[in-house]
Amino acid sequence: MVLEVAILAVKSGLESDFVNAFHKASPIIAGMPGYLGHEIQRSIENPSRFILLVRWNRIEDHTVGFRQSAGYLEWKSLLHHFYNPFPQVEHYEAIAEG
Amino acid sequence: MVLEVAILAVKSGLESDFVNAFHKASPIIAGMPGYLGHEIQRSIENPSRFILLVRWNRIEDHTVGFRQSAGYLEWKSLLHHFYNPFPQVEHYEAIAEG
Repeated sequence: MVLEVAILAVKSGLESDFVNAFHKASPIIAGMPGYLGHEIQRSIENPSRFILLVRWNRIEDHTVGFRQSAGYLEWKSLLHHFYNPFPQVEHYEAIAEG
Repeated sequence: MVLEVAILAVKSGLESDFVNAFHKASPIIAGMPGYLGHEIQRSIENPSRFILLVRWNRIEDHTVGFRQSAGYLEWKSLLHHFYNPFPQVEHYEAIAEG
């Protein structure tokens, strides 16, 4: 199991539009092979910042399967114009859970 | 429910020591009032980087309850010397889950 982490900096004033667009986009990622679940959360300290956590079976389910899918084109067109700067995505593996 | 997020940059060469110290420190945070669960995960792209996710009932359970506890002194002495730079901590609230 791999955790994709992206800190999303949304352009000021577009936060509500982003939340609405994210709700529309969610089924795209949720339908991908190897998708195990996701959360999107909003920063309390900086309400223009969000964190997206996506759990994948294998890293390639995200980096290859999702990014080379037709659904990714729709995901991009729904979401990518909200970000400034464009987010860095990192993948993590569990070492301990509580 | 509040999600505490900290990206932990561990000094190069000390990653295994950090993992061992984190296992020792985990029961401290897990025993705090308002603690709901945690995960620590290691970056695949940069194995000196870890992400700590802690779920709290309320933000004050972390910012006041934990940080003003006696256990926090032990937590600090077990873990804080591993970090460079010292991590920024941010708190998030869910807007959608999948």
